[in-house]
Amino acid sequence: MKYSFRSDYREIAHPQVLQALSAIGDAQFDGYGLDEFSVQAGEMVRAKVSAPSAGVHFVSGGTLANLTVISSALRPFESVIAAESGHIFMHETGAIEATGHKVCTAKGENGKLRVVDIESIVSLHSDEHMVKPRLVYISQSAETGSVYTKAELTVISECCRKNSLYLFLDGARLGAAINSPACDLTYADVAALTDVFYIGGTKNGALFGEAIVICADELKEDFRYHMKQKGALLAKGAVISVQFDALFRGGLYDELAGHANKMALRMADGIKTAGYGFLYPVETNLIVPVLPCKAVSGLRGLYGFYDWEVFEDMAAIRIVTSWATSESIVDEFLSDLAALL
Amino acid sequence: MKYSFRSDYREIAHPQVLQALSAIGDAQFDGYGLDEFSVQAGEMVRAKVSAPSAGVHFVSGGTLANLTVISSALRPFESVIAAESGHIFMHETGAIEATGHKVCTAKGENGKLRVVDIESIVSLHSDEHMVKPRLVYISQSAETGSVYTKAELTVISECCRKNSLYLFLDGARLGAAINSPACDLTYADVAALTDVFYIGGTKNGALFGEAIVICADELKEDFRYHMKQKGALLAKGAVISVQFDALFRGGLYDELAGHANKMALRMADGIKTAGYGFLYPVETNLIVPVLPCKAVSGLRGLYGFYDWEVFEDMAAIRIVTSWATSESIVDEFLSDLAALL
Amino acid sequence: MKYSFRSDYREIAHPQVLQALSAIGDAQFDGYGLDEFSVQAGEMVRAKVSAPSAGVHFVSGGTLANLTVISSALRPFESVIAAESGHIFMHETGAIEATGHKVCTAKGENGKLRVVDIESIVSLHSDEHMVKPRLVYISQSAETGSVYTKAELTVISECCRKNSLYLFLDGARLGAAINSPACDLTYADVAALTDVFYIGGTKNGALFGEAIVICADELKEDFRYHMKQKGALLAKGAVISVQFDALFRGGLYDELAGHANKMALRMADGIKTAGYGFLYPVETNLIVPVLPCKAVSGLRGLYGFYDWEVFEDMAAIRIVTSWATSESIVDEFLSDLAALL
Amino acid sequence: MKYSFRSDYREIAHPQVLQALSAIGDAQFDGYGLDEFSVQAGEMVRAKVSAPSAGVHFVSGGTLANLTVISSALRPFESVIAAESGHIFMHETGAIEATGHKVCTAKGENGKLRVVDIESIVSLHSDEHMVKPRLVYISQSAETGSVYTKAELTVISECCRKNSLYLFLDGARLGAAINSPACDLTYADVAALTDVFYIGGTKNGALFGEAIVICADELKEDFRYHMKQKGALLAKGAVISVQFDALFRGGLYDELAGHANKMALRMADGIKTAGYGFLYPVETNLIVPVLPCKAVSGLRGLYGFYDWEVFEDMAAIRIVTSWATSESIVDEFLSDLAALL
Repeated sequence: MKYSFRSDYREIAHPQVLQALSAIGDAQFDGYGLDEFSVQAGEMVRAKVSAPSAGVHFVSGGTLANLTVISSALRPFESVIAAESGHIFMHETGAIEATGHKVCTAKGENGKLRVVDIESIVSLHSDEHMVKPRLVYISQSAETGSVYTKAELTVISECCRKNSLYLFLDGARLGAAINSPACDLTYADVAALTDVFYIGGTKNGALFGEAIVICADELKEDFRYHMKQKGALLAKGAVISVQFDALFRGGLYDELAGHANKMALRMADGIKTAGYGFLYPVETNLIVPVLPCKAVSGLRGLYGFYDWEVFEDMAAIRIVTSWATSESIVDEFLSDLAALL
Repeated sequence: MKYSFRSDYREIAHPQVLQALSAIGDAQFDGYGLDEFSVQAGEMVRAKVSAPSAGVHFVSGGTLANLTVISSALRPFESVIAAESGHIFMHETGAIEATGHKVCTAKGENGKLRVVDIESIVSLHSDEHMVKPRLVYISQSAETGSVYTKAELTVISECCRKNSLYLFLDGARLGAAINSPACDLTYADVAALTDVFYIGGTKNGALFGEAIVICADELKEDFRYHMKQKGALLAKGAVISVQFDALFRGGLYDELAGHANKMALRMADGIKTAGYGFLYPVETNLIVPVLPCKAVSGLRGLYGFYDWEVFEDMAAIRIVTSWATSESIVDEFLSDLAALL
Repeated sequence: MKYSFRSDYREIAHPQVLQALSAIGDAQFDGYGLDEFSVQAGEMVRAKVSAPSAGVHFVSGGTLANLTVISSALRPFESVIAAESGHIFMHETGAIEATGHKVCTAKGENGKLRVVDIESIVSLHSDEHMVKPRLVYISQSAETGSVYTKAELTVISECCRKNSLYLFLDGARLGAAINSPACDLTYADVAALTDVFYIGGTKNGALFGEAIVICADELKEDFRYHMKQKGALLAKGAVISVQFDALFRGGLYDELAGHANKMALRMADGIKTAGYGFLYPVETNLIVPVLPCKAVSGLRGLYGFYDWEVFEDMAAIRIVTSWATSESIVDEFLSDLAALL
Repeated sequence: MKYSFRSDYREIAHPQVLQALSAIGDAQFDGYGLDEFSVQAGEMVRAKVSAPSAGVHFVSGGTLANLTVISSALRPFESVIAAESGHIFMHETGAIEATGHKVCTAKGENGKLRVVDIESIVSLHSDEHMVKPRLVYISQSAETGSVYTKAELTVISECCRKNSLYLFLDGARLGAAINSPACDLTYADVAALTDVFYIGGTKNGALFGEAIVICADELKEDFRYHMKQKGALLAKGAVISVQFDALFRGGLYDELAGHANKMALRMADGIKTAGYGFLYPVETNLIVPVLPCKAVSGLRGLYGFYDWEVFEDMAAIRIVTSWATSESIVDEFLSDLAALL
């Protein structure tokens, strides 16, 4: 196989991340995220998101981030609102339900939840025979590669505050969203409009790791207890924070995300030029082109990608580019595709 | 502070581990532990423990290993048997209870569970008004630095089989145990005598990571579902397996553990020579000397360690050496101690 | 208000049930369902459903029956399949999720799950990133008053066995279903086609109580442990079993259910005669007529019922008759309705 | 067997309770505890405990009361403090752990928790590697038949408030405690000194049922959601409240408890006269005499009781009297015992 576009976590880590880890040598550091690197990386995150009093915690992966945040915020009978395509609903093996909470879903649009979705779920759940929705979960960018604009996130945020709902933004691909031409949000906007979110490292150059940012005061207290209980408090916390330090220092994080987006848009342009369209708006490093089935068959041996949906003789496939994807492989893909059309 | 003996996870990682990660460069690998490195590291583990059909899975930390293994093995009303000092009982913030299971404890001896402890718990739990003990949890080495000998582990194993109890060995410090002069067990013995165990990386040279080894067939099935649900299935599984590959290749893992033990024993010899004793047998890289309080006070500014217990004018402190502890710092500690006595 | 048709659990209990309790006087009995009455009532249930080796357990209510049965049958990552209208999904405040399990839903038809619904959910859940469906939950009669016929239940049962799914039938209104003219199932058929089900007492003449019948051998073991843990093992188990004895002795249970159905059908006939229809087939003691809004408004002060859905100037309302509903009140309702049209 | 002294829930219900249920006839009432009987019984309970703004809820049994109250009060990482002999720790099959919470235990004295026990547990749990104790669970009367005096409960209450711990009193046998000569507490004192407690019906004349009384404002909110989720919201809530109405009206509840106590004290006097002692102070309807093994053997065929502990040729047995125990059977027991000595 020439290259896999199956996901953005297929390369081990950006060289600067590995260098940062190596540079520590055999220095000693305090355990469980109480070390100076973690303190310093926390400050960098607070500065980046312009939230000087935010709580910042580093965890090893997205599912752990999601289940720890959500279970920390809810009382037993409270539920989460998510899009049907939300990662926590479909692709985390019931991790949220395993902490005791129901996920209430709406169809949404382009993988995004709308105010009308949230309000219809809230109004449906009217008494103690039903769960009480208490937290809205959205992904930025979404599972479809779509982004919420500032206007969209603002009305969702207002809807949440009006309805006493926490707003939790899963930012496994937040770098791709913020650096998307389609997105007018800043990191500071995200911090101002949500109650808690995380900035993904795994999919943007880190070996692994996500930075949880807690904006709402009532969610900050005792969060380390929740982390420890769920297995999310890494003994060597510095292993994650050093990576974030490397990614945020000098803007590497945004540079990598921007590159991934650029590669996806380059590919999308080629596909459009070839006369084909997309299932969702092309906005970030995840795109879902709809191609003739026979071209898809031809590509299958050469490139990795996910099958999304089949429509008679056309097939939608999911293509994800990463910080490590080169222009040349994108062009090679396009040229191979052209030959198959 | 000159040096911290507070734990064996205070240095970032052994250089060979970091080199192994860097060596991969920007190669792509499959996600979620299905990559070739993970397959190969699994084979290395199976070979090392002489269990060719064992299930091997890599997770990011000990609490995750413990809660995933235990919750995967038990039905809702079944419980775990552990020593009162067991990590899962005292130091994991109720992680096991959070998965719905009670931990039944006995005092044990030197931090180790004995057959008599297990049998008395089993006989106490006689009907459906009480939980049903179903899994025995032991740590090798234990929280006190003590090791189970082959004879001890054999009778526990027989007791478990007779009473339909799974035997789970927490090997966060398995390297220290196996490489202890006090321990006549091999890795193969551990695999033969337990149903499931893990080999700790975090405390023996890895950046992070533990290798779970499942010996009992009925515990193997669908284990990846449990991992995913608990947030223990790392997206970049290779990040852990590459480290284990580096640690097991050429015997580095045992070499590092042996070094840590040697440093602790060197320190213990010095303390004995100075006329002081220990709360538990000196067997691995964790020792608990009992020293005059005024000497402990003097050491406090110079070295890191944990206070364990105070007896009038004497104090027990916990000292842990690591793969990175040097002979010279041990000798310096002893000389500083001598000056304070 | 003249009468409430809001539900079938609004009258305290059938006089024979109360007499049976009073008749025991101050006799002593063993606790926790181990008494002679419970043993005998268990035998009566086994005989009634022609399942001589079934496990029979009495619990105080439907939610407890549902959550105890379901959580006893599933491993942590396994899920339930239910219709969107299923009681466990919408009206039990996340009771199933609180035991750690996701409920996967399909729209169904007339409140009933079809083989095509089950199969599409099974085929969607293909790997360890998603829950594994393991139990199908259906209600007989359903939340819409509809019944599964023998043919329908047979194909569902076959589908479940083919796909290694347990089939659990919520029989809160099983009496109404079995005694419905639209239903050709016997109690023995239900026992033969499902793995576990319950026979509802609360909605058919008992003070409270449901009889769980476990047909599949692997679900029988240790069920009392599950009950005790969930608070479902009543100290005075005889309090429930004596009631079932009274209901099953001499056919009172079916007589009461048959009467409730007859009252609903009488009302339905009157509504049809008046020229109005129903949202679902009229089959049991729960019917959903669609009436002019102004007639519904007029009825509101006189009778209790639930609003179901509004369509412009027509409104669907839910009407439930019980063992205690009289012909005269049904006729009065119809006459009041006629006056309002 | 002449009579069983195994427990106080072996007779079906006091005749006045059954009459109260029968008296309702076929009247209709609202479901789920929203009926007029439940409202009125709630008022009676509030009056009885002199807590006009308390939340009052009726549930079917003690395990359900315990698990619903405790899980409603705690965040995921918070734990319960209980005596080792506490019902929730030993005899509820891990019901509390099944809701995700650890129970931290101390030995206590005579089955009762002391301030020193609570404080030592609190001080041990100092950081996020351990659970955070948040609720103290005590039983009044305790599993040993002992009662907390007003002075004892007052210092426990003060200790709890000082340490931000909720105080929950399991009153399955509260009637026996309040009506004990050894107890100077009133119902009003209990309400003033605890945050939540329940008044047991099952063990004092009801068919079944316990009245939960919530004193602390922050525990009141949304309690019905918790009840519904745990299966504790009975469809026919009136079935329980009518019983409490019957028990509280005219002082029947205290009369029954007083009678049970009197029978136990009468038996205790006879045993003392015969020259034998007790394992715990004789204070309520549960006593634990220590008798010669051969006398115990002789009694075994004639009377029901529980074996508690054996000391060489002496045996401690648990004897419980109830509202239905007659003087004559107590005297017969004493005379049979005398013949065996």
